[in-house]
Amino acid sequence: MDSVGVGLIGTGYMGKCHAIAYAAVATVFGFSPRPRLELLCDIGAEQAAAKAAEFGFARWTDDWRRLISDPAVDVVSITTPNALHPAMAIAAARSGKHVYCEKPLALTLEEAEDMAAVVKESGVKSLVGYNYTKNPAVSHAKRLVEQGAIGRLLHFRGCFDEDYLADPAVPFSWRMQKAKAGSGALGDMASHLINMAQHLCGPISAVAADLTIMHDQRPLEGTMGSTGRVENDDTVSALVRFHAGFSGSLASSRIAWGRKSRFAWELHGSAGMIAFDQERMNELQLYQAEGPKAEQGFKTILSGPAHPPYGNFIPAPGHSLGFNDIKTIEVAHLLRGLAGAERLHPNFTDALDTERVMHAILRSNEEKQWVSLD
Amino acid sequence: MDSVGVGLIGTGYMGKCHAIAYAAVATVFGFSPRPRLELLCDIGAEQAAAKAAEFGFARWTDDWRRLISDPAVDVVSITTPNALHPAMAIAAARSGKHVYCEKPLALTLEEAEDMAAVVKESGVKSLVGYNYTKNPAVSHAKRLVEQGAIGRLLHFRGCFDEDYLADPAVPFSWRMQKAKAGSGALGDMASHLINMAQHLCGPISAVAADLTIMHDQRPLEGTMGSTGRVENDDTVSALVRFHAGFSGSLASSRIAWGRKSRFAWELHGSAGMIAFDQERMNELQLYQAEGPKAEQGFKTILSGPAHPPYGNFIPAPGHSLGFNDIKTIEVAHLLRGLAGAERLHPNFTDALDTERVMHAILRSNEEKQWVSLD
Amino acid sequence: MDSVGVGLIGTGYMGKCHAIAYAAVATVFGFSPRPRLELLCDIGAEQAAAKAAEFGFARWTDDWRRLISDPAVDVVSITTPNALHPAMAIAAARSGKHVYCEKPLALTLEEAEDMAAVVKESGVKSLVGYNYTKNPAVSHAKRLVEQGAIGRLLHFRGCFDEDYLADPAVPFSWRMQKAKAGSGALGDMASHLINMAQHLCGPISAVAADLTIMHDQRPLEGTMGSTGRVENDDTVSALVRFHAGFSGSLASSRIAWGRKSRFAWELHGSAGMIAFDQERMNELQLYQAEGPKAEQGFKTILSGPAHPPYGNFIPAPGHSLGFNDIKTIEVAHLLRGLAGAERLHPNFTDALDTERVMHAILRSNEEKQWVSLD
Amino acid sequence: MDSVGVGLIGTGYMGKCHAIAYAAVATVFGFSPRPRLELLCDIGAEQAAAKAAEFGFARWTDDWRRLISDPAVDVVSITTPNALHPAMAIAAARSGKHVYCEKPLALTLEEAEDMAAVVKESGVKSLVGYNYTKNPAVSHAKRLVEQGAIGRLLHFRGCFDEDYLADPAVPFSWRMQKAKAGSGALGDMASHLINMAQHLCGPISAVAADLTIMHDQRPLEGTMGSTGRVENDDTVSALVRFHAGFSGSLASSRIAWGRKSRFAWELHGSAGMIAFDQERMNELQLYQAEGPKAEQGFKTILSGPAHPPYGNFIPAPGHSLGFNDIKTIEVAHLLRGLAGAERLHPNFTDALDTERVMHAILRSNEEKQWVSLD
Repeated sequence: MDSVGVGLIGTGYMGKCHAIAYAAVATVFGFSPRPRLELLCDIGAEQAAAKAAEFGFARWTDDWRRLISDPAVDVVSITTPNALHPAMAIAAARSGKHVYCEKPLALTLEEAEDMAAVVKESGVKSLVGYNYTKNPAVSHAKRLVEQGAIGRLLHFRGCFDEDYLADPAVPFSWRMQKAKAGSGALGDMASHLINMAQHLCGPISAVAADLTIMHDQRPLEGTMGSTGRVENDDTVSALVRFHAGFSGSLASSRIAWGRKSRFAWELHGSAGMIAFDQERMNELQLYQAEGPKAEQGFKTILSGPAHPPYGNFIPAPGHSLGFNDIKTIEVAHLLRGLAGAERLHPNFTDALDTERVMHAILRSNEEKQWVSLD
Repeated sequence: MDSVGVGLIGTGYMGKCHAIAYAAVATVFGFSPRPRLELLCDIGAEQAAAKAAEFGFARWTDDWRRLISDPAVDVVSITTPNALHPAMAIAAARSGKHVYCEKPLALTLEEAEDMAAVVKESGVKSLVGYNYTKNPAVSHAKRLVEQGAIGRLLHFRGCFDEDYLADPAVPFSWRMQKAKAGSGALGDMASHLINMAQHLCGPISAVAADLTIMHDQRPLEGTMGSTGRVENDDTVSALVRFHAGFSGSLASSRIAWGRKSRFAWELHGSAGMIAFDQERMNELQLYQAEGPKAEQGFKTILSGPAHPPYGNFIPAPGHSLGFNDIKTIEVAHLLRGLAGAERLHPNFTDALDTERVMHAILRSNEEKQWVSLD
Repeated sequence: MDSVGVGLIGTGYMGKCHAIAYAAVATVFGFSPRPRLELLCDIGAEQAAAKAAEFGFARWTDDWRRLISDPAVDVVSITTPNALHPAMAIAAARSGKHVYCEKPLALTLEEAEDMAAVVKESGVKSLVGYNYTKNPAVSHAKRLVEQGAIGRLLHFRGCFDEDYLADPAVPFSWRMQKAKAGSGALGDMASHLINMAQHLCGPISAVAADLTIMHDQRPLEGTMGSTGRVENDDTVSALVRFHAGFSGSLASSRIAWGRKSRFAWELHGSAGMIAFDQERMNELQLYQAEGPKAEQGFKTILSGPAHPPYGNFIPAPGHSLGFNDIKTIEVAHLLRGLAGAERLHPNFTDALDTERVMHAILRSNEEKQWVSLD
Repeated sequence: MDSVGVGLIGTGYMGKCHAIAYAAVATVFGFSPRPRLELLCDIGAEQAAAKAAEFGFARWTDDWRRLISDPAVDVVSITTPNALHPAMAIAAARSGKHVYCEKPLALTLEEAEDMAAVVKESGVKSLVGYNYTKNPAVSHAKRLVEQGAIGRLLHFRGCFDEDYLADPAVPFSWRMQKAKAGSGALGDMASHLINMAQHLCGPISAVAADLTIMHDQRPLEGTMGSTGRVENDDTVSALVRFHAGFSGSLASSRIAWGRKSRFAWELHGSAGMIAFDQERMNELQLYQAEGPKAEQGFKTILSGPAHPPYGNFIPAPGHSLGFNDIKTIEVAHLLRGLAGAERLHPNFTDALDTERVMHAILRSNEEKQWVSLD
């Protein structure tokens, strides 16, 4: 397998992010299979044609069903709004295409279960874009945990805060509607947090959650003072229990002024602690309870070649990877996975565990009680 | 009122802390009433005599009942283990002495209620040592909230972590026994966090909590491998609702390796955010959503004379107050309060609100459900 | 002009860096001219062929003279060791090719002057890879200075420290030889610092410098204990005067344990300060002496779409650009410059000013006195 | 020796700082000799009487000559403007009093030499208030250097910046006059920096310096637009060489907006680095080149009982000492030194080395050349 034919659906935030990663991956990693940018799909012929030229795709279409049945396409990148994921992913899988889908999988748990089932029965491979776990600093954190560097895990804390809806004047949109967007901060950000917690700490067994809508009316654009009712969560807070027998807490807000990508978490262990903040994504904080007390402290470890695959990007430490570089690592993983060299993770079945926690959080909030995931 | 006669019970961690504050307060603040260090009480005559000399007290006793009935004593500093607070505070109040008591008030809610009731009916004044709210940086945070600098409050987050029991080899002691110490991280640290949340956000209306004991057996000193069973919480996590209609979350751990005094909290507002971490107690983080986007960011405000009463300690900004200085501010507040110049806060009635939340957290943990405080 | 034919000489650290930027630039910026990766040159046919495949170049050669005379090549990227820059750049310019050369220009000032002269008389365009000035955070700093956000400039401080030679066991190599590498920390890192100082503060008029070699013998690889004599600077420190009438200081070390890319500088102004550290390359520190004293402090501004061209990479703020992204911005600038849309900066003539300061620093160190640049 | 009779001259910034330290020292350290606050001297009887009451001194005077000849006074604290130090210190020493003098010693080197000579021949003890070296974090840094924790010293960097004269509207005063204040930033702040460099790195052998006056006219208070000419340095920058054979650089500014007490320095060693910033005076940064590369990083060590005498203030780590606490440590050292238990450091002879470097810096600036201290 020398190359992989890529079809990309969507050219927005994450669509462009996929395109940049596809453009860079072979130069950065220097391996086969290389991506062949076959077909790009966007809404409207003009837009699709323009984006195909910009992103270096050979052909374009404005009909996603043509894309998923195109014989030159081996894998489909799905970067459309969440509500569209299920139909596209299921059709692609049934058409024998591998699927690389942005998170979360779907608006309802049933749809997510369908997606996982269809991918399984179709025998195609799948990957879900929980990119933050691919950061070399985070991979090193996981390695440290596995090596026992902080002993037995005892507690987890995490938040994921941004301020993109902090301004009450941001107009009403589909993002605030349950039918179109599903949950709010939960699906958009806390999903990453749950996924990270599972990645680092293993399965979650129970949750107790509290969601709020603090800006419940937002201006309708093009009107004189009319407003739309916000239907999904501005903030989500949750207590969690892990199968391994310890507790944790999660919190996420989309109205947290000043936070731009504050995806920060702490792993408390019996022999140390690891802490991380995505706003300083090239730094890992490590405390190990060893050596003289007078010299104990949190180490700030700057990412470098000692944290693979950082060295594929830059041979010198401390020179900083960026957000898009992490997506390039994810795409390299995708290509190696399609070539059979690595097990793709998280695939749709793995990601379903994250969706289950998300929906347990919604239920816990409605019922105002603990919800078990067993 | 030129001076106030002080009686101090206890000379451990907090006892010495009170003594340092009494020693420094007149020089720092230069006002009347000045403290007259009349009588010190500790266990054992030798120890009491030695500490009285060191701390500059005129006389000593090893019988706290003599101290609270000493005619020269106007106010009693109670810095003994928590289980002893109720008897001492109640006796002191009944003896007509003002009471300055360390937190938390008591092991049970009933005792705390008694303390508040007796103080009220005795007509004496009271102050509880929730010192962290007296930090000029924190006082400024509160002022900023009141001035609307971050708009309407929308969310609260806070943690208070230390690692004094992080090492599983720390031997078993009375601190881990419910009958002697009450709760663990909850009473010791989360009580400060709850008090701070109330101070900044107003009353708490409901809680859902989860407590864990992660090191449930600890070595019994002087034995060959015997252990004692830890009965109170190593970690506490809680979801909270405030009367004002917004949510928050609290977390505290006494087994958090690397954290030495990580009392960190965030106030999310509709127009900005304030964040603080006690480990950098001279820094306040302020984000205000104003001015050009390209110049928005969290400001690190170093404490200085613009944040009273910092200037009483040092006329130059950025020169750092210390933990003991905050206690000196608390003692200055006590003295001014006893002179009638200020309303003492938090008094026993105020502090009872904090105890109520603590006990609601315990109940919520036992019943695994939300507990209302209304 | 739809596209630009690119010839790349060298495939090491900076060669790969250029290649990644060429691969990504069109997708990120979506404009013409696009780069056409025509010809790659490396030492040895096998290596050249392999790298051409990895980096996506159409053809390869192991003879750089063929590359600079290839008719399909419009611009030559020179990323070879510094000693080779002059011959290649001069030959390329004489062959009518635009030149994109890594810094510093040359080992001697005479060679650098020749390079600038030949480029000028050949009428080709040139760009020197002082990439750090292309960081959106740095561009914003410059914009802030120009807008008067910190008033009149009064002082400059800067350092550039790394630890790649901090270990005395790092073996002797051509890097430590004057004839092959020229200066040490000065050419490698301080050159960036000087360039940045000039970029932000204008021309430098005088210097007083002090260089040291602290590890003066290093092991010769393949020998039993023989060592080679280090001939160039481990550390460089300099006092500088700017034409604009203020002072500053510069320092750089290649033996600074723990520093990985500590390129940190401060601009002191009459109304504020700007500070930056490349190890946190997405953060700009801004202090403005305005508003209430109690709310003054350094703002940490996270890079975002408000700092162009950040938004071409990611539409959300605080998501972090990486080191390679900055090179992509430099390459976008190169392509726009070749298309006549922007004035390339720093070209060889601009960069010559930086070389002049470097050589004045060397002379000042030898003569142990101030050296004027006027 | 049970107690020491204290006479304090001056009640301004540093005078109050001494008073607070005298008030607290016995309670904090619990040892003899205790200070007896005998006599306070200030300008004007009313002011002197008021301050004596506030600071707890038994008696007051407005004539410093009476203070230095008072039989109950054993040690004289001199906290007056620098120009007055020599006459007072010399008279006190000749009167048989120990002298505790604020830094710098004097305006001229000749006066400083006289002071040291008279103290020596009088047989009294002396201490100069270079308080920053008494910080437990700094003491630990020195201990680490002595233990070889960062190997052989290779380089030093330091700055001391504040912004108390950053506003050009700050009116003209005696502080800006050579005859009354001597140098500017050099004497006020860089003196601390030089002293710290000597403390940590040993003697300085040569300097090359550059001073600037950036706000050369300041408004005369009480006039309509008249200004006074500033005569001493707003900024000082210097290259230094240490006897031990390595280099360093120093910089200080009193017009550095945003810096409140930015006394930051770095010790570069052959096996690691130590860095410190007084604005975060409870944190020591330590990098040691040992263990796996993937886990190397700067450790942030929070001050605690492992760093004596921190534990005398607070038994728990990470709870923060303040600026005044460091002065209390200095006063404890003074008292122990007077009792013969410790060698006082820096005494006038030690401090003379710091003055010599200061005056070499002034000469280097005037002559624009290196000045040797040998």
